[in-house]
Amino acid sequence: MVLAFLPKSSNFFDLFDKQVDYAIEAALHLKEIAARGMVDEHAGQKMRDIEHAGDDVAHAIIDQLNKTFITPFDREDIHVLAKELDDVIDMIHTIVNRLMVYKLTGVNKNLVEFARVIELSVRAVAHAVKGLRNLKNLKSITEACVEVNRLENVGDSMRDKVLLELFETEKDPIGVIKWKEVYEDAETVLDICEDVVHVVQSILVKQA
Amino acid sequence: MVLAFLPKSSNFFDLFDKQVDYAIEAALHLKEIAARGMVDEHAGQKMRDIEHAGDDVAHAIIDQLNKTFITPFDREDIHVLAKELDDVIDMIHTIVNRLMVYKLTGVNKNLVEFARVIELSVRAVAHAVKGLRNLKNLKSITEACVEVNRLENVGDSMRDKVLLELFETEKDPIGVIKWKEVYEDAETVLDICEDVVHVVQSILVKQA
Amino acid sequence: MVLAFLPKSSNFFDLFDKQVDYAIEAALHLKEIAARGMVDEHAGQKMRDIEHAGDDVAHAIIDQLNKTFITPFDREDIHVLAKELDDVIDMIHTIVNRLMVYKLTGVNKNLVEFARVIELSVRAVAHAVKGLRNLKNLKSITEACVEVNRLENVGDSMRDKVLLELFETEKDPIGVIKWKEVYEDAETVLDICEDVVHVVQSILVKQA
Repeated sequence: MVLAFLPKSSNFFDLFDKQVDYAIEAALHLKEIAARGMVDEHAGQKMRDIEHAGDDVAHAIIDQLNKTFITPFDREDIHVLAKELDDVIDMIHTIVNRLMVYKLTGVNKNLVEFARVIELSVRAVAHAVKGLRNLKNLKSITEACVEVNRLENVGDSMRDKVLLELFETEKDPIGVIKWKEVYEDAETVLDICEDVVHVVQSILVKQA
Repeated sequence: MVLAFLPKSSNFFDLFDKQVDYAIEAALHLKEIAARGMVDEHAGQKMRDIEHAGDDVAHAIIDQLNKTFITPFDREDIHVLAKELDDVIDMIHTIVNRLMVYKLTGVNKNLVEFARVIELSVRAVAHAVKGLRNLKNLKSITEACVEVNRLENVGDSMRDKVLLELFETEKDPIGVIKWKEVYEDAETVLDICEDVVHVVQSILVKQA
Repeated sequence: MVLAFLPKSSNFFDLFDKQVDYAIEAALHLKEIAARGMVDEHAGQKMRDIEHAGDDVAHAIIDQLNKTFITPFDREDIHVLAKELDDVIDMIHTIVNRLMVYKLTGVNKNLVEFARVIELSVRAVAHAVKGLRNLKNLKSITEACVEVNRLENVGDSMRDKVLLELFETEKDPIGVIKWKEVYEDAETVLDICEDVVHVVQSILVKQA
């Protein structure tokens, strides 16, 4: 899981490819955890490993940026893109961590559904970011961005629906506190994915 | 409510004027909802429409920015200003959404009071932002900024007072969870208004 | 406590020295409050004074930045550094404010421990930031940054441990709501300290 080394010749596109691959790995891990209805020590450690590996790539991108004079697109956009992708992985890590700390077990159909939408969104984000390597991909990048925006709206509606349901059915306030946070964090992953594609769209406009 | 089109000739000042007008519309809508003590389907839809229209203007500003070489003030300041004004509208939308999802009904005097202060602050923000068109307005822009800072302090004290009261009087933890969030979000609107005028002040200093 | 004046000749290093000194003052004040197990009116006022003084320095840095053509390091880095240091002080202020508003009294061993780690982290942050004045300090700056990163990890583990304990032992949901926030805010101080040293490290790389 851990990046053994990052060769000096790493270019930004290779590093972003690695970073989005870790984001997909995080999303798949969350989906598996949601399906199993529990986070054991092994699953928790795996999540931390993915998060650390993601951190390492984010730092490598910033280091590369600070050392590089000519960049494939705006310095600020590279910085923000690396930061937002890191936030995607961190927020997925936060969800898994909460499930452990709050000792939430049992398959929760809402979390399963959120994990499914998060996977779709992260895959579309990956498609958009990987596409930046070649602007001939303009059409398919744009479609991926539209998809991420759509999934963010889906996530908003899901969050409202499940919170409404939670407040109506969960009579234990402690349970409300715990699940409310997990659902809100899940929706936040989709918000951050949307932030990522905003940066991608901004990069595209400037290249036009 | 929806922006039918944004002519290419739109300049930044026109777009910011539109954006602050939507912020005022959002603040007035919140005030009406607080006075009526409920959000019905129609009021919820109206809030979503304002939020979408605000989003469209924010995107139009960023698009315009990415396509424009000479800007009336720092590119970064234009970007942050559009983002912060969008956050004002989003946070008002969040409050209205919570009132719906949490099924909070009945006139709440604290929310009525917050909505009143939010309207004052958003109007002062609008005055400051619209003033940027002509720096002869320096004195009145500065006064508006001072007013927004003052209202942020008012909001801080209000939040502390109403939270203290909430924890002393509301014995249902679920009620505490719901109202605590609404009050904190209301205060956050005033924080973001202050962030907006920080950008305005930064623009003024650079033009000096 | 209040900055009587900021001479025009203030340079950025002097201003950052002042700002980190206020951060240390805030951390020490939190530690004292945690040890005494209560925030009385006088302690609350002292915290507000430190926060205002910190605000004044942050504004002075931004003003100086807007008026200065040649800066000792990247304009954006100066801006972000001032902002993040301000966030450190604000978050400590938020903790003290919550203790007052929530009427939390009595010595809480977890808060005492968090306050201790916060002091260590803020002192290391101060060491790193003050070191920027002379890059001969490279080694000791880097060591301070590593220490801040280490303490952030310590804080993460502490937060998980105390939240797990809180949910298992505190049967009053209102108590859970209150302490959960205080602990999370305490951990957030350490996160922001880490953000500060990321900026410091970014400045170092560019100077290399």
